[in-house]
Amino acid sequence: MIDKLIEKIIKTDNPSVIGLDTDINYLPQEKLSQINSLSDAAIAVCEFNMDIIDAVYDIVPAVKVQIAYYEQLGSWGLNAFERTLDYARSKKLLVIADAKRNDIGSTASAYSKAFLGQTDINQKSFKAFETDFLTVNAYLGSDGINPFVQDCQKHDKGIFVLVKTSNPSSSEFQNRLFDDGKPLFHHMGEFVAGIGKNLIGKYGYSDIGAVVGATHPQEAALLRKMLPNTFFLVPGYGAQGGSAESLKSCFDSKGLGAIVNSSRGIICAYKTEKYKGTDYAKSARMAALDMKRDLNRVRQN
Amino acid sequence: MIDKLIEKIIKTDNPSVIGLDTDINYLPQEKLSQINSLSDAAIAVCEFNMDIIDAVYDIVPAVKVQIAYYEQLGSWGLNAFERTLDYARSKKLLVIADAKRNDIGSTASAYSKAFLGQTDINQKSFKAFETDFLTVNAYLGSDGINPFVQDCQKHDKGIFVLVKTSNPSSSEFQNRLFDDGKPLFHHMGEFVAGIGKNLIGKYGYSDIGAVVGATHPQEAALLRKMLPNTFFLVPGYGAQGGSAESLKSCFDSKGLGAIVNSSRGIICAYKTEKYKGTDYAKSARMAALDMKRDLNRVRQN
Repeated sequence: MIDKLIEKIIKTDNPSVIGLDTDINYLPQEKLSQINSLSDAAIAVCEFNMDIIDAVYDIVPAVKVQIAYYEQLGSWGLNAFERTLDYARSKKLLVIADAKRNDIGSTASAYSKAFLGQTDINQKSFKAFETDFLTVNAYLGSDGINPFVQDCQKHDKGIFVLVKTSNPSSSEFQNRLFDDGKPLFHHMGEFVAGIGKNLIGKYGYSDIGAVVGATHPQEAALLRKMLPNTFFLVPGYGAQGGSAESLKSCFDSKGLGAIVNSSRGIICAYKTEKYKGTDYAKSARMAALDMKRDLNRVRQN
Repeated sequence: MIDKLIEKIIKTDNPSVIGLDTDINYLPQEKLSQINSLSDAAIAVCEFNMDIIDAVYDIVPAVKVQIAYYEQLGSWGLNAFERTLDYARSKKLLVIADAKRNDIGSTASAYSKAFLGQTDINQKSFKAFETDFLTVNAYLGSDGINPFVQDCQKHDKGIFVLVKTSNPSSSEFQNRLFDDGKPLFHHMGEFVAGIGKNLIGKYGYSDIGAVVGATHPQEAALLRKMLPNTFFLVPGYGAQGGSAESLKSCFDSKGLGAIVNSSRGIICAYKTEKYKGTDYAKSARMAALDMKRDLNRVRQN
């Protein structure tokens, strides 16, 4: 699956992914004022997402859908999540489900079925949330991650494992040194390379990738050097404070190796001074094009 | 909320929680053979759960509902999850949503609204998944956990943070020593005590608890000693190999301080030789009573 993502990046000449982290309160006031139930909210979020997808599907390789914003609308929200994934895939976008799932082996297997594999019941197979990539958290170690890795292989999917996250307090645990003098994120990076070594595609990258925040340039540079076969999903650009310069080192010498996410910076662009006077879909497209230019400015092509 | 859980444990004289980790394939074959869609599956899981709840609600303080098994049925499954929570609460059971959620602050806030708080839209408030406790993963550090802690305080809820998990490979990261000679799980335990210190109830325990596996007795004993104000959710008893003896040290001198989960050991009891000839609801009750006796045998009362 990583080969498909890289091909889409090359084709669109765009190493960015738009985050449909669609908090219901990001919608325009005239839409919010019509909402009287969680089902109203889920429908409104879904329509908003479809408008954004229509506005950008020809210029970006992928969307990342952050499930938390759908869970806050209950099962109606998960229905909107499902329909958003399906609509994005119908437009030939690759889809990253940002869910940071994690559990012991038997339960991780259920999560993996939900997002990457399939649910088998009585000799029939069903698809729950059909995605191309899933983010996961490996605090539980290898037996909690193996079910995802197996489904990546079996169903041609990918995962991104949290290595160094973009938030300010990520250092509290992730940068703590182990007794060998290396920080936790370093060990997590090595772990990710290890579980991904048999799933390396034709561009030299594995289906097992890493989440590496744009807000920590030093760690990103170290990880890029350490992990030549690990593709990075890079959050933290834009609203979280990361710049193109700060994430430059996530790319390899060919300008590949990373896909950079922006969520609020794109879907809430219509609320900013810069894009004032355009609707949310048009401003999302303009902001996505601006982001593409900004990233291409720093990466080798 | 932790006070309510302790009161329920005292009232039922039972420190156990039944895990409704209801994999659809745990259901009897005659039910499975009627399933032709994910909505059929969700309805069947919901009915199964209601039968189990009816069979045990008077003898246990709480149920733990593992969301992964519902996600593998898509948004229909989340509807079954919602209805299971509601039904358990209608029977006065406390409800632990086992979801191990984690993300950066803004997104953690969305997860927290989904399970512990409320979703505010246009000056109206809605409830997504109404639970009493939620499990969370703190790999991202304090700013990813604070939204949950704030909602615990505001809405009288609780969380259990993963400290030492029950799975075999939990040692890969959690037992690695930091450069101060203490393992990661030790630091995680101290972190949990720190964020919970202002939420301690009348029994001396905080609303911010810890997940500590029954399968690692030494670590559990150390953590019990280290964390006198931290209540433990203890997975790993039964199907995963943990015994009453191995988790004995999770309890304090009054026999409190921990609630022990069993999932497959209860809801799949009807498939075992021991409970052969009874239906799944009756055998779940028998297994739950056997578990209660087994735990009470080792804890002080």
